[in-house]
Amino acid sequence: MRILVTGAAGMIGRKLVERLAKDGHVGGREITTLAMTDIVEPSAPGGLGAESQITAADIAAPGAAERLIAYRPDLIFHAAGIVSGEAESDLEKGYRVNLDGSRRLFDAIRREGERAPYKPRLVFTSSIAVFGAPFPDKIGDDFHLTPLTSYGTQKAMVELMLADYTRRGFMDGVGVRLPTICIRPGKPNKAASGFFSNILREPLSAREAVLPVSEDVRAWHASPRAAIGFLLHAAALPPGALGDRPNLTMPGLSATVGDELAALNRVSPAAMRLIRREPDPVIQRIVAGWPQAFDPKRALSLGFRADSSFDEIIRYHIEDELGGSLPGRP
Amino acid sequence: MRILVTGAAGMIGRKLVERLAKDGHVGGREITTLAMTDIVEPSAPGGLGAESQITAADIAAPGAAERLIAYRPDLIFHAAGIVSGEAESDLEKGYRVNLDGSRRLFDAIRREGERAPYKPRLVFTSSIAVFGAPFPDKIGDDFHLTPLTSYGTQKAMVELMLADYTRRGFMDGVGVRLPTICIRPGKPNKAASGFFSNILREPLSAREAVLPVSEDVRAWHASPRAAIGFLLHAAALPPGALGDRPNLTMPGLSATVGDELAALNRVSPAAMRLIRREPDPVIQRIVAGWPQAFDPKRALSLGFRADSSFDEIIRYHIEDELGGSLPGRP
Repeated sequence: MRILVTGAAGMIGRKLVERLAKDGHVGGREITTLAMTDIVEPSAPGGLGAESQITAADIAAPGAAERLIAYRPDLIFHAAGIVSGEAESDLEKGYRVNLDGSRRLFDAIRREGERAPYKPRLVFTSSIAVFGAPFPDKIGDDFHLTPLTSYGTQKAMVELMLADYTRRGFMDGVGVRLPTICIRPGKPNKAASGFFSNILREPLSAREAVLPVSEDVRAWHASPRAAIGFLLHAAALPPGALGDRPNLTMPGLSATVGDELAALNRVSPAAMRLIRREPDPVIQRIVAGWPQAFDPKRALSLGFRADSSFDEIIRYHIEDELGGSLPGRP
Repeated sequence: MRILVTGAAGMIGRKLVERLAKDGHVGGREITTLAMTDIVEPSAPGGLGAESQITAADIAAPGAAERLIAYRPDLIFHAAGIVSGEAESDLEKGYRVNLDGSRRLFDAIRREGERAPYKPRLVFTSSIAVFGAPFPDKIGDDFHLTPLTSYGTQKAMVELMLADYTRRGFMDGVGVRLPTICIRPGKPNKAASGFFSNILREPLSAREAVLPVSEDVRAWHASPRAAIGFLLHAAALPPGALGDRPNLTMPGLSATVGDELAALNRVSPAAMRLIRREPDPVIQRIVAGWPQAFDPKRALSLGFRADSSFDEIIRYHIEDELGGSLPGRP
């Protein structure tokens, strides 16, 4: 099986290619080639048994997507894109990369299929940013998409195109609406959602973190490990399993900041003292427009599974990012 | 008030500019200039008191939208686009005209606003083709968009972009999801929805019409007169009336083919004999995926009003298209 991963140098992309290298197969099919691309050259994951192909490419540039598709990957994980903060501050770049880049990829697939039969599975990393307040208590699978960011708009537009190209038989697309990823690895960033991860990741590594909202703020979370699990499960769904509605809200953990801190306290009471409370009205207002809870019946019935608690999410972080134990402990 | 109408040579565009010429004002503001454009040169309506500007332009071509926006219209009716049958048979043309054309128009508005403050009201003719089966009995205002045609996909993508550009303050957009237009004037065409109009328009003019579905087939209808009324009502809504959800499903008349024929029989029992029943499984299957009834609370609360019956729709057709009486009658 030939696999292509776009956005392979991003947070999700890196974790995905590491997992692919470790597993060696997807849905029971052996990986023979793993092609990885991003705007900067991605690194090959350690222990990859398959042939690797690494390119630095801007998929929004003319011809780039065609070159990636020319070797006819059987499975494409399309994770390339710029993040919400940048899509909001640089409107043209957001539409160019997130919308046009995806469209060029989809069109390259369609044209490859015109030359000789070709219909790859394409797993698109969408986001719950396609939703915007006001919401019902639990957002159902048939609730409309009214994004309140340009990033969410671009993801929703690509979802529509993915559904159309899938309906027309050009590809076999699955759109995976990822929850807020928590605990995001790496350094604190300026994303409005950053604090959800910061308040766990930083104290767990003995560093201070700022909490800009109250403890009753609720969000829909998935660990990086769960998110990669969603993408792999989507990749292995039987063809046509989603009919004409190939975009799916993923299950997640609906939890408050208070739930996060309670779990942190159970792991490390000392870490709790590193939380600095600095209410920020701007972040509070932004976060108020985000979804808090879903009723993702379709994804659950298809076997997608969320994290069960923040204790589990913290344990994954310690295992996957901190070598299995907290700094200064055995 | 300066007005621009794109798609001014199309069915909706022609009726709109005729009405604008007749009224002379929109929302209490006098029309000083009426600019009309389409891929073929539109005709100026009779009795236009305002200055007219007529251009033939492909808004999807580089620079065309900028030229249309350079004179800074206060109000834009964006009705340009190719129809559903053509968008399905020519995929690239559909995305180029319906998506890229709209995007170029929106971007021209955004860039004009970068030069000097500019934020026109833009009324976009969307369609209930943004919806796709399966449906609840009545489709609510927060039901998701899952179009089953490329045309509906393109309309839904433009709706998303309109909402984003409105949220960001580049324009003051209103998306108007028109019901099936019935009775469409003109000749019978090959559109799958054509029979809804054909079975009234043709017999009313003493010509035969083919009915390819059973009498219990239900759809969501609006007369051309009601549709133009929707666009004008949208144009006159106060700024910000729609918040962050500027796309609206219009009220309509939920009626069956049987309801249509009963109304026809009341006007002209003789016309009924001109209906030829030729069941067509392909058309029956297509039509089964179309919405039948909505619960358009938002539009109703904003004052949009539908036709009350097919008797009324037939009367409008006789007044507007047949000079006020049936052929051969006084």
